[in-house]
Amino acid sequence: MVPGADRVEPAAAERVARLASLVPALDSAAEAAAAQRQAQLLKPAGSLGRLEELGIRLAAIAGRCPPPVPASPAVLVAAGDHGVVAQGVTPWPQAVTGAMVAAMTAGQAAVNAIAAAIGAEVRLLDVGVAAAPAPHPMVRQGNVRRGTADLAVAAAMTREQAALAVLEGAAAAGELLDAGCDLLVTGDMGIGNTTAASCLIAAFTGLQPVAVTGRGTGIDDTTWERKVKVVERALQRHAPDAADPLGVLASVGGLEHGALAGLALAGAARRVPVLLDGVNAGAAALLAATIQPRVTGFLIAGHRSVEPGASAAMEHLGLEPLLDLRMRLGEGTGALLAVPIVRSAAAVLGGMATFAEAGLEG
Amino acid sequence: MVPGADRVEPAAAERVARLASLVPALDSAAEAAAAQRQAQLLKPAGSLGRLEELGIRLAAIAGRCPPPVPASPAVLVAAGDHGVVAQGVTPWPQAVTGAMVAAMTAGQAAVNAIAAAIGAEVRLLDVGVAAAPAPHPMVRQGNVRRGTADLAVAAAMTREQAALAVLEGAAAAGELLDAGCDLLVTGDMGIGNTTAASCLIAAFTGLQPVAVTGRGTGIDDTTWERKVKVVERALQRHAPDAADPLGVLASVGGLEHGALAGLALAGAARRVPVLLDGVNAGAAALLAATIQPRVTGFLIAGHRSVEPGASAAMEHLGLEPLLDLRMRLGEGTGALLAVPIVRSAAAVLGGMATFAEAGLEG
Repeated sequence: MVPGADRVEPAAAERVARLASLVPALDSAAEAAAAQRQAQLLKPAGSLGRLEELGIRLAAIAGRCPPPVPASPAVLVAAGDHGVVAQGVTPWPQAVTGAMVAAMTAGQAAVNAIAAAIGAEVRLLDVGVAAAPAPHPMVRQGNVRRGTADLAVAAAMTREQAALAVLEGAAAAGELLDAGCDLLVTGDMGIGNTTAASCLIAAFTGLQPVAVTGRGTGIDDTTWERKVKVVERALQRHAPDAADPLGVLASVGGLEHGALAGLALAGAARRVPVLLDGVNAGAAALLAATIQPRVTGFLIAGHRSVEPGASAAMEHLGLEPLLDLRMRLGEGTGALLAVPIVRSAAAVLGGMATFAEAGLEG
Repeated sequence: MVPGADRVEPAAAERVARLASLVPALDSAAEAAAAQRQAQLLKPAGSLGRLEELGIRLAAIAGRCPPPVPASPAVLVAAGDHGVVAQGVTPWPQAVTGAMVAAMTAGQAAVNAIAAAIGAEVRLLDVGVAAAPAPHPMVRQGNVRRGTADLAVAAAMTREQAALAVLEGAAAAGELLDAGCDLLVTGDMGIGNTTAASCLIAAFTGLQPVAVTGRGTGIDDTTWERKVKVVERALQRHAPDAADPLGVLASVGGLEHGALAGLALAGAARRVPVLLDGVNAGAAALLAATIQPRVTGFLIAGHRSVEPGASAAMEHLGLEPLLDLRMRLGEGTGALLAVPIVRSAAAVLGGMATFAEAGLEG
């Protein structure tokens, strides 16, 4: 696997490159204006802590100060299956992925309950579920292949499929953005996906598999040791090149990781903030940031997953999660809980008076 | 100052005792039902982390499972002034308390912006502002005295005033609860109040003043050292008895601390959860829990203030804040950001299906 300029890229990869080229730089003028306004607002300097830096970042993302208060957040749950479950990395059968997609369309899952409490829309993307979900208005059909191959013994997908997964995620995000969504939240569903996420995070960060492989849904010691070995062997077998993002995704990733990277690129291209959930979002963010480093400025880490790979990914990206509630479910549940914090950070810049406006000395 | 059974209590103190007697025990049957349901919901056991324990607690508070999802949260900003500002413990003039009350009624403060973003009502209580605020529908008049005396040289207030402050807070909370509020959030405004809070926290926890005295609005080293000495001298002078809560409040507290303790007791008495903000709420919670230990079960720590006294108070109460965003503004701003987490914790128990309900094996 020698990536290089002489490689003939599939058309899908060229479309990914085009998408990546649309990601702008952060707006430094809006950022400076927000920092200045933050210092004049009716509060002791710095007293709103991380809310202040977040508000400044939102201005840099939106390209204006004050930044808009997100009114229509949406979580996209990208769902896919993973051939690596054949290695016994999880006690959950593959059929649970499709069953959970069905449960989400029925409004029965954690993501539904939390999104309702927060005031966010839930949308699903079948980018790689093994058993085709029943058609449902909540589910976008974007299946690239019915589950990845077992990354322990073969490439998870072809290079073209990797690119197509990114594009499907971008298209799903684009549909949400066209409908008025102004804050994208990453969600994921896929039995076995934390194994692929660990592979991606190890590949992109250079960290050892043992340091970035966690217990997923809560596996026991024996299963965890097996999972670490699977990740180690996969990285040895494929020797993915961290500088070749689609190659890494194709060899050891998951289709939902590709889709969430596409969502991140699409959000950034439209200057909409992207709120990251746990370890699968972290893997997708590393992928997106390797495709286009400028995307990182548009990412906000919502919740620090219990998964060690999640923290490793966030640290590599220079992101500090807003929440730490010891969650490890996925589905976007952790990041959804950070939506009101993002809204509040924007609202402070737009809604508060300055000392001067309130007729007080600053 | 020898408190004891032979002391003739003012009538107000007897009313506080009556209020305290109305606080029920947590409902262990609802708690057990919630724990059982939590284990059956459509997710890996424990995967929602702290959201799970919080949901169980909400059931124990409400006395039913699933607990209601708070629909009408409200923050009560208790405002008071502090004679101790004469000691130079803060660079802000006392007039800022009243000015900030005015700013809040004009919708210009941080609490307004964040409450709007979260969907919470803002209510103010003048329990001790030095300069009477202009009448306004948002401001409840409950002024017990126009600012405390300087606790460095005298008792901050009389014992009766201490009891009246508690009752005014309870009355303000009762008015909110009568209007349908189902989640109370503590807020505070008062130049100099972190000095009184440090005194209260040191008195109730037995910790040294230097360990529980912080920088408030962001004072410099010299001012901080002066503040620590003021707290030390006040505790030496008054030697408050930690077992006599109204005596502690009267000697070294603030009127808004009394009011927020009253709010906590009133919320608990009505089985409504009380979400605590920073260091002033921590001091008030210690006061309330000394008046009535059962109140602690109804308290939820919203945000970990930068103030060291806040963490000391929460630890003493056995509470772990939900958020840590390095905020130190007060006004209830940190706790407001935790409202959606509380809502989500309740929504999970009520909204999610069990594995059995979803037709899946658990």
